[in-house]
Amino acid sequence: MPMEAFIQLGMVSDDPSENQDLGGADSHGEAQKDYFVEKDGQKFAGMHLLVDLWGAHDLGDPVHVDRALRDAAMAAGATILHSHFHHFAPNGGVSGVVVLAESHISIHTWPERDFAAIDIFMCGACDPYLSVPVLRAAFRPESVELSEQRRGLLS
Amino acid sequence: MPMEAFIQLGMVSDDPSENQDLGGADSHGEAQKDYFVEKDGQKFAGMHLLVDLWGAHDLGDPVHVDRALRDAAMAAGATILHSHFHHFAPNGGVSGVVVLAESHISIHTWPERDFAAIDIFMCGACDPYLSVPVLRAAFRPESVELSEQRRGLLS
Repeated sequence: MPMEAFIQLGMVSDDPSENQDLGGADSHGEAQKDYFVEKDGQKFAGMHLLVDLWGAHDLGDPVHVDRALRDAAMAAGATILHSHFHHFAPNGGVSGVVVLAESHISIHTWPERDFAAIDIFMCGACDPYLSVPVLRAAFRPESVELSEQRRGLLS
Repeated sequence: MPMEAFIQLGMVSDDPSENQDLGGADSHGEAQKDYFVEKDGQKFAGMHLLVDLWGAHDLGDPVHVDRALRDAAMAAGATILHSHFHHFAPNGGVSGVVVLAESHISIHTWPERDFAAIDIFMCGACDPYLSVPVLRAAFRPESVELSEQRRGLLS
């Protein structure tokens, strides 16, 4: 597949979302001196969820995938700064990322195996777990494997 | 900080890199029916490295960060499809992502703590471990914490 075809399939959007809390403690860089978060007695940079979907649906439709990731970001209270999706041929897989004021959500799909690998990285007061039900509803997986990483954990 | 300032600081590039192996087995969607990879007797979708840098340098310069991630992608043999970086105020942190034909590399930096969280997700024949020395050279961290996740591991 020539590079031109990939570029043509690339979709870029810079529309900011409606969660306009850029000046609050949720964002990467406002209103507080220490941008690490505290939870359960731990202090760290951000929560990173790795979410594997098996037996999932609608993994080859970039418009659906884009919508799902945006909805997932909004559900977590995040602010979308930028999104970009690619649709690959011939397997129909989609790669996409949504850049947030609070980090990012990414997805890579393998429709031929009904598999998708998602990661949800959020700092500040956003709760990445609130994204998971939205992703379940969008892709209706038979099973989900989820692991949580606390990035930048201070010992 | 108003949303307009974030948008202005956003940098987008769609220049494809020189690694033009989009038609080979390295890419997400060409030339083979089964896009999962095999390594060490395991079969999985892709290798995902989570790399935390501590005591790191030059974390507040989006041009430097962009260059470092692109160089890291190229070192791994990956093909860059798209990159996007944001520079946050007032802490000077940078969030960025490079979308690859073989998945993605992302970074989020906390210059006030000399900390950066990077993730390198690569499918196909790309070796994400080849990105790590490039990132070490670019950010000169005092210490690095690395964890490897095999996404979509078939049991």
